Amino acid sequence: MGTVYLVGAGPGAPDLLTLRAARLLERADIVFHDALVHPEVVALALRARKVSVGKRCSRISTEQRFINRALVEAAHRYGTVVRLKGGDPMIFGRAQEEIDALRAANVRVEIVPGVTAALGASADIGISLTRRGVSRSVLFATPRTGKERDPDRQPNDWARAVAAADSAVLYMSRGEASQLVAALRAAGLREDHPAAIIESASLPQGRQAYCTLATLPEHAAQAGQGPALVILGEILRETVSASGMGPGSFESEGAAARLGAIL
Amino acid sequence: MGTVYLVGAGPGAPDLLTLRAARLLERADIVFHDALVHPEVVALALRARKVSVGKRCSRISTEQRFINRALVEAAHRYGTVVRLKGGDPMIFGRAQEEIDALRAANVRVEIVPGVTAALGASADIGISLTRRGVSRSVLFATPRTGKERDPDRQPNDWARAVAAADSAVLYMSRGEASQLVAALRAAGLREDHPAAIIESASLPQGRQAYCTLATLPEHAAQAGQGPALVILGEILRETVSASGMGPGSFESEGAAARLGAIL
Repeated sequence: MGTVYLVGAGPGAPDLLTLRAARLLERADIVFHDALVHPEVVALALRARKVSVGKRCSRISTEQRFINRALVEAAHRYGTVVRLKGGDPMIFGRAQEEIDALRAANVRVEIVPGVTAALGASADIGISLTRRGVSRSVLFATPRTGKERDPDRQPNDWARAVAAADSAVLYMSRGEASQLVAALRAAGLREDHPAAIIESASLPQGRQAYCTLATLPEHAAQAGQGPALVILGEILRETVSASGMGPGSFESEGAAARLGAIL
Repeated sequence: MGTVYLVGAGPGAPDLLTLRAARLLERADIVFHDALVHPEVVALALRARKVSVGKRCSRISTEQRFINRALVEAAHRYGTVVRLKGGDPMIFGRAQEEIDALRAANVRVEIVPGVTAALGASADIGISLTRRGVSRSVLFATPRTGKERDPDRQPNDWARAVAAADSAVLYMSRGEASQLVAALRAAGLREDHPAAIIESASLPQGRQAYCTLATLPEHAAQAGQGPALVILGEILRETVSASGMGPGSFESEGAAARLGAIL
């Protein structure tokens, strides 16, 4: 019986993969990867069979139950099975459903953590998510509503959690900017609450826009097709004030483009 | 004039470094590293001068102002200056103070994100920080009180932010377990709120204990000298219930020890 490794592929740039993930890919027999994982990362698995299992936002994605079953079956046929997920497996990666299914089938599971997208986004804009005297907590949240499994264990209201934290990063939220802002306003955030949209974090085509809660929807409407994160908090206030950018404008050159020229 | 790279060294295990960080270290001229960064990571900087700048919990650490000044001076003398921080630079790494000082001195700064300790801890225990139907938000917070720079920009109450989030990870909190629990109880968390203590995340000597908010202080008192994180939330309930561990007991073998035997 093989081992299934749930492996974080990092925020986007292929060289933000960990050394451990790279070594595992090199000796993997089969790799199941999300659609958003960079092709250069998948290509590290020289000898492996590669299976794309979707999970790209707003596209038809492979059913989670199918993925769970495929992982169990692969563990019966191969020694090293890699399940490659964008960012870190344990943050909005549906890892628990796969872990539970594998353990129920007595398959050995190991987790290889990765750089989650929020950290790639923070690096892109050069603004720390925590800051002495300004922010001692940062919340990662997804405004998406999933099926609630147990009515007695309802997740807290995400907007209230954002309002209680000093800083926040919202995952996969671009298509829902107007509802998102309405929920945050209702939770007590002010119209001038500083915000940033980071598109395609850590990638050469990455773009960033600084705005406020009030102007977030018009900025979000100008974003492209890449995955986007929203950062909120006082940590952004000086940058938002200094940017003086009009609605809908994006900075043309991200940190990743600069770094790409160096490395 | 050189460039200063603020580089995340990951949660502890040297192979959880990113490929980009490893390449930067190989060509670095000088490396300023925290005390907690693994010696094998520092050793990747073959040709660099190495400077340890402290920052180990509860030991005398080099003053932040000295570090800022040293980085600026190094950028005037060397081409590639690496500032190596445990975990990710932008999460409780005091990165903003260094970024601001470098920018004020017109020194070019780039951030290389890393795997933050919370993700290493989550991987160790094999429990996802988010979970469909149970947790759609996770807060990273530090209960430490720092000097507040601006009375108009007080950080929110960290305990209230923990109570509003579905899951939470507390950084550097072991020595303060009793005060921590009192603050969380006052913020509305119940005595049976599921908790885990993860010591030396991702390292072979790593240990984990599952408990509740009520028994957290007695478990914390049994922890060793390694850095520790506390995880809180419903995501842990099944594991805490199943563990049935007595006060103060730690699991002897972490995921890192298992992985170390494989890789």
